[in-house]
Amino acid sequence: MYLTQGLHRSLRHSPDEPATIFGDRVRSFAEQADRAARLAGGLRSLGVSDGERVAILGLNSDRYVELLLAIPWANGIVNPLNIRWHPSEMVYALRDSDTSILVVDDTFAPLVPELLDGHPGLRAVVLAADGPPPEGALHYEALMEVAQPVPDARRGGDAVAAVMYTGGTTGHPKGVALTHANLLTSVLGTQATCSVVRPCGRVLHAAPLFHMLGLHTWASQSIVGGTHVIVPKFDPEDVMAAIDRHRVTSIVVVPTMLQAIVDHPQLTTYDLTSVTTLAYGASPVTEALLERAMHAFPHADFVQVYGMTELGSISALTGEDHRRGDRLRSAGRPAAHAEVRVVDGDGVELPRGTVGEVAARGGNVMAGYWGDPDATAAAVRDGWLHTGDAAYMDDDGYIFIVDRIKDMIITGGENVYSAEVENALGCHPAVAACAVIGLPDDAWGERVHAVVTPRPDADVTPDELIRHTRCLVAAYKAPRSVELVDALPLSGAGKVLKRELRARYIAPASGREAAIG
Amino acid sequence: MYLTQGLHRSLRHSPDEPATIFGDRVRSFAEQADRAARLAGGLRSLGVSDGERVAILGLNSDRYVELLLAIPWANGIVNPLNIRWHPSEMVYALRDSDTSILVVDDTFAPLVPELLDGHPGLRAVVLAADGPPPEGALHYEALMEVAQPVPDARRGGDAVAAVMYTGGTTGHPKGVALTHANLLTSVLGTQATCSVVRPCGRVLHAAPLFHMLGLHTWASQSIVGGTHVIVPKFDPEDVMAAIDRHRVTSIVVVPTMLQAIVDHPQLTTYDLTSVTTLAYGASPVTEALLERAMHAFPHADFVQVYGMTELGSISALTGEDHRRGDRLRSAGRPAAHAEVRVVDGDGVELPRGTVGEVAARGGNVMAGYWGDPDATAAAVRDGWLHTGDAAYMDDDGYIFIVDRIKDMIITGGENVYSAEVENALGCHPAVAACAVIGLPDDAWGERVHAVVTPRPDADVTPDELIRHTRCLVAAYKAPRSVELVDALPLSGAGKVLKRELRARYIAPASGREAAIG
Repeated sequence: MYLTQGLHRSLRHSPDEPATIFGDRVRSFAEQADRAARLAGGLRSLGVSDGERVAILGLNSDRYVELLLAIPWANGIVNPLNIRWHPSEMVYALRDSDTSILVVDDTFAPLVPELLDGHPGLRAVVLAADGPPPEGALHYEALMEVAQPVPDARRGGDAVAAVMYTGGTTGHPKGVALTHANLLTSVLGTQATCSVVRPCGRVLHAAPLFHMLGLHTWASQSIVGGTHVIVPKFDPEDVMAAIDRHRVTSIVVVPTMLQAIVDHPQLTTYDLTSVTTLAYGASPVTEALLERAMHAFPHADFVQVYGMTELGSISALTGEDHRRGDRLRSAGRPAAHAEVRVVDGDGVELPRGTVGEVAARGGNVMAGYWGDPDATAAAVRDGWLHTGDAAYMDDDGYIFIVDRIKDMIITGGENVYSAEVENALGCHPAVAACAVIGLPDDAWGERVHAVVTPRPDADVTPDELIRHTRCLVAAYKAPRSVELVDALPLSGAGKVLKRELRARYIAPASGREAAIG
Repeated sequence: MYLTQGLHRSLRHSPDEPATIFGDRVRSFAEQADRAARLAGGLRSLGVSDGERVAILGLNSDRYVELLLAIPWANGIVNPLNIRWHPSEMVYALRDSDTSILVVDDTFAPLVPELLDGHPGLRAVVLAADGPPPEGALHYEALMEVAQPVPDARRGGDAVAAVMYTGGTTGHPKGVALTHANLLTSVLGTQATCSVVRPCGRVLHAAPLFHMLGLHTWASQSIVGGTHVIVPKFDPEDVMAAIDRHRVTSIVVVPTMLQAIVDHPQLTTYDLTSVTTLAYGASPVTEALLERAMHAFPHADFVQVYGMTELGSISALTGEDHRRGDRLRSAGRPAAHAEVRVVDGDGVELPRGTVGEVAARGGNVMAGYWGDPDATAAAVRDGWLHTGDAAYMDDDGYIFIVDRIKDMIITGGENVYSAEVENALGCHPAVAACAVIGLPDDAWGERVHAVVTPRPDADVTPDELIRHTRCLVAAYKAPRSVELVDALPLSGAGKVLKRELRARYIAPASGREAAIG
């Protein structure tokens, strides 16, 4: 199977049905296929050769969806850039993957000079917007206008379809290379386990399309057929208005988005009864939030999917699980396509109830980290991808995430690796030592908190350190709070005892965490 | 993915839940996995090596399901014999595939001497029954009892999982080699298109497990998780009783079975409200049958799946299609995993509404015909499998089967190739010429009808010709009616004009058929 397969199928079944709805702009499958074929022709005319990387930097739009089709159609590899990243991080992702073409929307066009400066290997920049392109950039619509349509390359199976950069434990992002088969194994296996989208339904893309959650949702609706309703970015009222206006059947969110919807003062003025599946990812919901959400979306089946960029999705908490309501803190049970184990440091499965690392195997496991066989070999051992998530599995196979071995914080659905933030903080001349931890946060799930020991005689404020960090990494990765202390708690080996640090802020939730080695 | 994957998943999630229910015998997933591991050990002890063929000949049973797991577990290839075939046809399937082990139930044990005689290459015969085995055969339970469990081979992907023999156009059956990926692509793609089974549901196996419809149903429920309720063979009252007693959620049937259920005098005495999906295959339903069936199964979503042994399933008429009720004569639209075209003799797609041959492409297309690269190359061209079904596709992508290019009759869900029956008839000394066609039949969909020109001065009756044919081919392939005529209508090239023959019996249904080239 291949990523554009769903478009061809919809084109044959229902060419005049809407493929994308973006504001007032509706495009049919016939238009979408025509545009994808010509856009692919345009990309080829820019010299895109087989397997060459094409980056997208933009808010969600119908053009984003077109690009997700046109790039594989041209036999390119899509590199969807994280819009929240600092330009220096984007440059890293462009350089590391040796991306030759960048398609950017008007929101991010101002970053182009900095990106070109950082990665002169960019052969062409295309502005995907209605207005005129900046100096030196091509116009998306004009490129498509003059291009000859090309036949779909129809590469699939083990051909790499996407390289997606995620934060790294060692301070550098890593490019996750995913094949068509990787993505579609995850899509079909998840659909067979719990329907995230409905065949012939209408999905609303509230999550960003550059993120695995958004990309997976797009691929799912595309392969089973149906319409993509797109909002540029998450705004609770825009989302509710779009659901109401377009009779959306499925939405996929992170719990912080769901919270913003149910908290919104205009909640009851919109008709949300068309939604029959509401999927969420990245973190569990609380019982209180679920109860309110079930009231707000009275006809929705609630499902949680758990996964990561390297894997797509691997487990699900189904509608039935939600109706029973007894395991809401769980990440669900392994999906039909994935084998999941909780293992010790040697990869040996641990008894149920014992905390270890989550490892997964299956056709969904990434092809590898782009150009980094060592990192790939460290992550994928005997076919098992080691997730870095610490969890236990109960007797019925439900997975409960209790911590992250890789010291990762999930804030508003985004992964933040402490090491990256600590590296950035450590560059400040006033910082002697620091440790970054996640603290519970009602709005974001977790928030990034830094504990810093200043150098003797240094005069620095928490605000200055936050500003400093924001110059180096994405704003969402920078600490939201900084505490200055005289000393950090250290182990005998001189390692910062993060558990002890966290314990100062958080009362232990249960005895389970004591089981972590 | 691999065929035993669902068992491992269920074993981890719900080891004590019922895996199989067969009469009063209930076996949990823990028991099933234990038995499969030991049975696989037993097969290995009989010398089953990697990729070796193991045949099953029996009615549906819980042991049949165990074998479908134990054979791949032992890294063997399953050869499920058509129980309706004549022993000489079974011998052909055993010899052609060089099958070394035969597992037989007590119903078919009396055939063993004839099968051994025809295929001395059978190293061992195992009786899967409660009683003692016949002379020279091993006892299934004893084999399992003494065997050491072996670890699951976990072969999957492109490894061949099954070789399934189907009738051939040239008089000989052909062995369809299917990989794990072939079968599971079809299973997941069909589930994503229209749920045939429900995760954690209970499926009733009314269709025989040796047939693709039954095997596909088994693989579907196994991979999404759930219980297999098994009846030895189709009997309308047994099926209704099993649904009522075990609260079955899904059943998969052929329309003749559905007809027998709704016609049954005891229909209203059983509670069939637990059924939420009713899938059927092999031929369309009439509006009258559907209406009665919807009344009999008030909570069921009706879906039709269309496919063949070489492909698994390729298209579906969904629940929504049935509720609209306007395309019941259609075989539905291509499923998410399959590309389907109606093509001319050169493989070029025809305009919508024009009749041609159905061709399909995708990960579900068989690996090939066992040991027959020529037949494989004739059937699979540029990745497209040519089905031999004549059909047109309407503007919305619905497929309407109008005839069979390969001159095939579908009777009670079984495919009968006219050529095979004509070969058998032609062996009778009194037959000068003959033609076999399918005639519409209320009970069987189609029935096999032969038109025979006797040799001059020969004295033969229709009954004698039917008896003669039954000695050579399966009873269901033998004509149910024979007409003796003076001459057959011939084309200028001397070919029997079957269209003209059929026209003598059937009033044309619509102008569509006139479009066949």
